[in-house]
Amino acid sequence: MNDEFFIRHTLRLAAKAKGTTSPNPMVGAVIVKRGEIIAEDFHKKPGTLHAEALAIAKAGQRAAGSTLYVNLEPCCHTEKRTPPCTGAVINAGIGRVVIAMTDPNPKVSGKGIRELEKAGIEVKSGILEEEAKTLNEVYIKYITTGKPFVTLKIAMTLDGKIATPEGQSKWITGERARKIVHILRSRADAVMTAIGTVKADNPQLTARISKGRNPLRIVIDPHLEISPDARILNIPPETIIVTKNNDSLKINYLDKSGIKILLFKEKLDLNWLLEILGKMEITSLLIEGGSSLNAHALEDGIVDKVMFFIAPKIIGGRQSYPAVGGSTYRKLEEAHRIKDMKIRRIGEDFLIEGYVKSVNEL
Amino acid sequence: MNDEFFIRHTLRLAAKAKGTTSPNPMVGAVIVKRGEIIAEDFHKKPGTLHAEALAIAKAGQRAAGSTLYVNLEPCCHTEKRTPPCTGAVINAGIGRVVIAMTDPNPKVSGKGIRELEKAGIEVKSGILEEEAKTLNEVYIKYITTGKPFVTLKIAMTLDGKIATPEGQSKWITGERARKIVHILRSRADAVMTAIGTVKADNPQLTARISKGRNPLRIVIDPHLEISPDARILNIPPETIIVTKNNDSLKINYLDKSGIKILLFKEKLDLNWLLEILGKMEITSLLIEGGSSLNAHALEDGIVDKVMFFIAPKIIGGRQSYPAVGGSTYRKLEEAHRIKDMKIRRIGEDFLIEGYVKSVNEL
Repeated sequence: MNDEFFIRHTLRLAAKAKGTTSPNPMVGAVIVKRGEIIAEDFHKKPGTLHAEALAIAKAGQRAAGSTLYVNLEPCCHTEKRTPPCTGAVINAGIGRVVIAMTDPNPKVSGKGIRELEKAGIEVKSGILEEEAKTLNEVYIKYITTGKPFVTLKIAMTLDGKIATPEGQSKWITGERARKIVHILRSRADAVMTAIGTVKADNPQLTARISKGRNPLRIVIDPHLEISPDARILNIPPETIIVTKNNDSLKINYLDKSGIKILLFKEKLDLNWLLEILGKMEITSLLIEGGSSLNAHALEDGIVDKVMFFIAPKIIGGRQSYPAVGGSTYRKLEEAHRIKDMKIRRIGEDFLIEGYVKSVNEL
Repeated sequence: MNDEFFIRHTLRLAAKAKGTTSPNPMVGAVIVKRGEIIAEDFHKKPGTLHAEALAIAKAGQRAAGSTLYVNLEPCCHTEKRTPPCTGAVINAGIGRVVIAMTDPNPKVSGKGIRELEKAGIEVKSGILEEEAKTLNEVYIKYITTGKPFVTLKIAMTLDGKIATPEGQSKWITGERARKIVHILRSRADAVMTAIGTVKADNPQLTARISKGRNPLRIVIDPHLEISPDARILNIPPETIIVTKNNDSLKINYLDKSGIKILLFKEKLDLNWLLEILGKMEITSLLIEGGSSLNAHALEDGIVDKVMFFIAPKIIGGRQSYPAVGGSTYRKLEEAHRIKDMKIRRIGEDFLIEGYVKSVNEL
């Protein structure tokens, strides 16, 4: 099926910009005439031209009578920095548009298609829709809820431990798994950890790979116990501390060092935090916490995706730190359920990925 | 490569008797003449004819000048119930013998081959040797050490928990994984658990599948806390209790009920137990314990293979039971290492299998 072939190509093009389009989606566009690709391009970063516009510009006059393939419904609204794509498509004289998925943005969804159809263009939608949705899962979550897509990453032994009772966790997984974590950081808008991990590991939480973009870092530190020497406070980029301690001396000190403070009262509601992050245009959040933060995130229902890196090691010990700890637990009937579990080998380790089922899906 | 093709067929034939040949190995034999199989068979159970003898009998006169394929070196010793196979091979006039692996029994290894070669038969060995060794891993361990091959089976959530703090563990994994556990039991000579699991789950530890052979059951119960009503004591077959409580009233009661008692002093050394089981011709032991027994087995270094069934569930909780507990733990540098990890999907769950590296391999 030709349509599927070219849509798959748009997905590949779109994915080239993984980690650089936030808060925009990843989009690839291919212009095809008589079975041949005459132009293609993808969206690189916010503020620059959309994939459709770029490809149409490349095709020039030849776009007339062609088919445009694009993995996301072309935009029609004008509340943004770049002109709407539907106009460009119509003006170029494109005869047919094939789309993987409609725009999940409720303000747009379907309107782009209707505008094209009104102009006499044949539109086909829903080709490789599932793949397209997975590619832009971050964008979809963010545009429909205003909150970032949350990935919970855990590196554990085969027996589910993330650290010895003494807090030793370096290194459970192998080099390749750790490199992938740096890639994940570089693609995330923000990374979140908790004071326990900062104390035990003193992590930088930066993306130490070539061209790695460092995420905003968030530390949950209810009692402001963080040391001024903590690496996370002294290495760029930005760090936010989420605390309930409003000791003005400490806060002034941190403020002067360029550290942002978010104050909560009594008990931290991570949904409240997600909303604030959403307003800051943080579309994706990677959690790299310890037993307690991992448990807290799951209990507050903020986790969309889990990534468990499993090392071929067993350490045992009732007092070792479990992947998910906390003071509460779920009964088996009420366990958090993971769907669409996938597994792959990462060097000497395994990676199990899946999505947390929402309450409605149980 | 033809030799590989026919050896693969012997492995398939041999595997048909999985679970019924103990303490003998699984062996399949194929007799080939001019590229065609003229006879084939496999060893069914101890006391019956070996695969080679069966196939040779089937081939009759036609065996002359043929090639015999067999996954294990033909036996030459006479310290057993059936006649040695080397004689039968020579008498049948077989011209060539292709073998996957030599007999690991130090009393035999290589002697069968030498006897055949002395009779002018061409012998080729080492075809698909790794596969052959994996198929007969239980036999190899038993014949070379006198101790059973030990498999540690664990059914856990994605976050490494085998029970809630209240001891709830039914059911973590799905139906298909549980069915496989019944198959494992039916193939094991013995299954071992501990009093904690008996109290919490009151299991039968029987192989509840069609034609399932029930294993001998072993309960580690240091203080003889088991209830006389425990299902494991009231459902056939045999049960052994391993204890250090020599209360004669209790022991007499159990003895009258047909329960065997093994007494240990102070601290249970599982290697001591393995040796006793080996003398009882127990060649394979499946451990289905709780956090503590699993830890104990690993610490005593008796585990050969691990099988972790991983369910798509997360229950969390610092106080939930971990897959491997115990009062001690390993540092990451000293962690038990698992090699040859394999993974497969079992219904809704995953199964990770691997072998525990011995100290020498670290």
